[in-house]
Amino acid sequence: MSERFDAVDVIIAKRDGRRIPDDQIDWMIDAYTRGVVAQEQMSALLMAILLNGMEPGELARWTAAMINSGQRLDLSGLSRPTSDKHSTGGVGDKITLPLAPLVAACGAAVPQLSGRGLGHTGGTLDKLESIPGWRASITTEEFLAQLESVGAVVCAAGAELAPADRKLYALRDVTGTVESIPLIASSIMSKKIAEGSASLVLDVKVGTGAFMKTTQRARELARTMVELGSAHGVRTVALLTDMSTPLGRTAGNALEVEESLEVLAGGGPPDVIELTVALAREMLAGVSDDDPADALRDGRAMDVWNAMITAQGGDPRAPLPRARERQTVDAESTGVLTRLDAYAVGVAAWRLGAGRARQEDPVSAGAGVVILARPGDAVVKGQPILELHADDPQRFERAIQALDGGVDIGPAAAQAPSLIIDRIGD
Amino acid sequence: MSERFDAVDVIIAKRDGRRIPDDQIDWMIDAYTRGVVAQEQMSALLMAILLNGMEPGELARWTAAMINSGQRLDLSGLSRPTSDKHSTGGVGDKITLPLAPLVAACGAAVPQLSGRGLGHTGGTLDKLESIPGWRASITTEEFLAQLESVGAVVCAAGAELAPADRKLYALRDVTGTVESIPLIASSIMSKKIAEGSASLVLDVKVGTGAFMKTTQRARELARTMVELGSAHGVRTVALLTDMSTPLGRTAGNALEVEESLEVLAGGGPPDVIELTVALAREMLAGVSDDDPADALRDGRAMDVWNAMITAQGGDPRAPLPRARERQTVDAESTGVLTRLDAYAVGVAAWRLGAGRARQEDPVSAGAGVVILARPGDAVVKGQPILELHADDPQRFERAIQALDGGVDIGPAAAQAPSLIIDRIGD
Repeated sequence: MSERFDAVDVIIAKRDGRRIPDDQIDWMIDAYTRGVVAQEQMSALLMAILLNGMEPGELARWTAAMINSGQRLDLSGLSRPTSDKHSTGGVGDKITLPLAPLVAACGAAVPQLSGRGLGHTGGTLDKLESIPGWRASITTEEFLAQLESVGAVVCAAGAELAPADRKLYALRDVTGTVESIPLIASSIMSKKIAEGSASLVLDVKVGTGAFMKTTQRARELARTMVELGSAHGVRTVALLTDMSTPLGRTAGNALEVEESLEVLAGGGPPDVIELTVALAREMLAGVSDDDPADALRDGRAMDVWNAMITAQGGDPRAPLPRARERQTVDAESTGVLTRLDAYAVGVAAWRLGAGRARQEDPVSAGAGVVILARPGDAVVKGQPILELHADDPQRFERAIQALDGGVDIGPAAAQAPSLIIDRIGD
Repeated sequence: MSERFDAVDVIIAKRDGRRIPDDQIDWMIDAYTRGVVAQEQMSALLMAILLNGMEPGELARWTAAMINSGQRLDLSGLSRPTSDKHSTGGVGDKITLPLAPLVAACGAAVPQLSGRGLGHTGGTLDKLESIPGWRASITTEEFLAQLESVGAVVCAAGAELAPADRKLYALRDVTGTVESIPLIASSIMSKKIAEGSASLVLDVKVGTGAFMKTTQRARELARTMVELGSAHGVRTVALLTDMSTPLGRTAGNALEVEESLEVLAGGGPPDVIELTVALAREMLAGVSDDDPADALRDGRAMDVWNAMITAQGGDPRAPLPRARERQTVDAESTGVLTRLDAYAVGVAAWRLGAGRARQEDPVSAGAGVVILARPGDAVVKGQPILELHADDPQRFERAIQALDGGVDIGPAAAQAPSLIIDRIGD
């Protein structure tokens, strides 16, 4: 079959700073998904997009073409309004775990199609898989039934959802074209829009432990994604949140499930509670007048958690796996802990076995870092400030190297940055 | 074997506008030639180079790495000084044919490794292959022996010469990364430097029929190539020459051989003679005091031509192939021919069968365009100004369409542009 367009013309348009015509965008993504446009042609186009940018309308069309490469779920038959959250990824970011059942407990349905971790940030599915029996893969029918009955599903995205993104994501990884705001935004939003949620809240992380290192870049990404969501009829709001320090007191798989259970039981670290409640309020805006803080305190969120885990084969009462070996990292002086770098803790947890370097690597359920002192806490020389967990004690050395320079102790506490930096949306 | 570098780091350096470190350039070109760096990685780097450029020292290293991907011929054992010419390609540009024997007749050795045509400009090998028996492929031993005995060789470049360029050239063609001055310059110069000539003259064409449409871009390319040659110890000079009108009175394969024979016999069109002699003088600077104009008049250049064709199996006295069909294009009004567009004539000759659309296509030896009136000539309505030659008469219609808008007849001649626009070099 002869093709309507030539990939070289599309590449040259963007290379020369022009907007790619709509019909050429549709063809390019479709032909790439079909394998007619070669990897080397798409990578040249991705580099041209990274360097020359995309206009808002052009990016909306590009994202639509990615959505159209697969199926778009239809959730309009559910009896509850749908609302989802996406985080750009951070260290100790277990928020999805308490948040999904919490929002469901307040009356919305949360259709959370999630991914696995790669690099120094953990993946939600890896965390939930530390629960004995729980499985990430379910059919579309099971997904819809669980959404209706339980109100919350966290599961693996199927291959039929934005397949163009799957292929583009792998290509960007090996061609130095990851760090492009239009490409990041279209990757996230194509999957989230295809998922069919009526409303979406974005948690855009900023700081050393996040993909976006500056508030300016994070704000630009947030604005771009909010515009894309609105262009596709999804009510979208973004919170910019701090990721210079890990969230909560744990970074690891089972360790973070344990901390999430504390939050669902009405306790847990204040920063995890604050962000969970703030995101829940955004997700429930216009949907429910319930106060999510109440639903944490009165056990309703925990009930949904138990139902959600059970529905996917997990045993919410089974003991969680623990790593065989532990080692503490102690304060080197007396004073106030002024900085605990999110990236350093993330890399340490990764090297302890909580994360993977390649998509096909396994992860350790029990490995990770427990944070015993947080920025602002007074510490005495020799006092443990971190506890490292690993199955293999040989992993401690490289984890400790990762922490080098990541912990500061000073005479007095610096002003702590606010956790929620900004809100972007209507 | 583990690799010294990661292609993604090299791509990111250039993407972010940094100079690629020397050892990473060496590795990247070598690993690409070995197939360790994937096509999609190199194409992303090529797009980043096209958009962000390269520093002179960086480009010299890149070119050196391309040369080092294969063998560099050693011509130092020859009894004559070596001098070569390269043209960036134009319509009716048969200059190599009279030039190589002419320069050899004046005492230099001309080691011309040449290519085939693609698109609207013809290839020197395609032209010579219209001579019965002549073959483009010879061994390195035959090449060296002929250079010593005859003084001139025009033949196909072997696979061992800058193999990285062969692979890069094909990749650029399908990824919209052809139009980059550093990439064009390194492609041309890697082959020409690997060829081993001590001196090199570049004919950089400017105008509608050339790859460079503006004098500014042509001058930039010329300067870049002259610097690259000098950086590699090759005495390099460039002439910027006009390509808004075809060179001479023919565009086609056998047709251009025929015109070259007129020049070698002391006749031929004034513009072809002017450029041939000017390039010969540059190639002979510091090598010979012979006046090349004399060597055309006294038959010495023709003697070398006959020896050169014979040495490669050709019969210089055999009749040249002619196309079966002819059709004229006539003047639409009476006046002075003010413009004969090189690109239009080039595309017409291509469509008549003289050129190829894909590397593997055959060409017609006899097809092409004979120019009966040149800019500045007075013409009468109905008088033939072009004669089209093709084996298949069905080709005339599309060739005539290509000429639409390419011929202007006005009340008086416009000032003719000079053929030689500028000279760049020491």
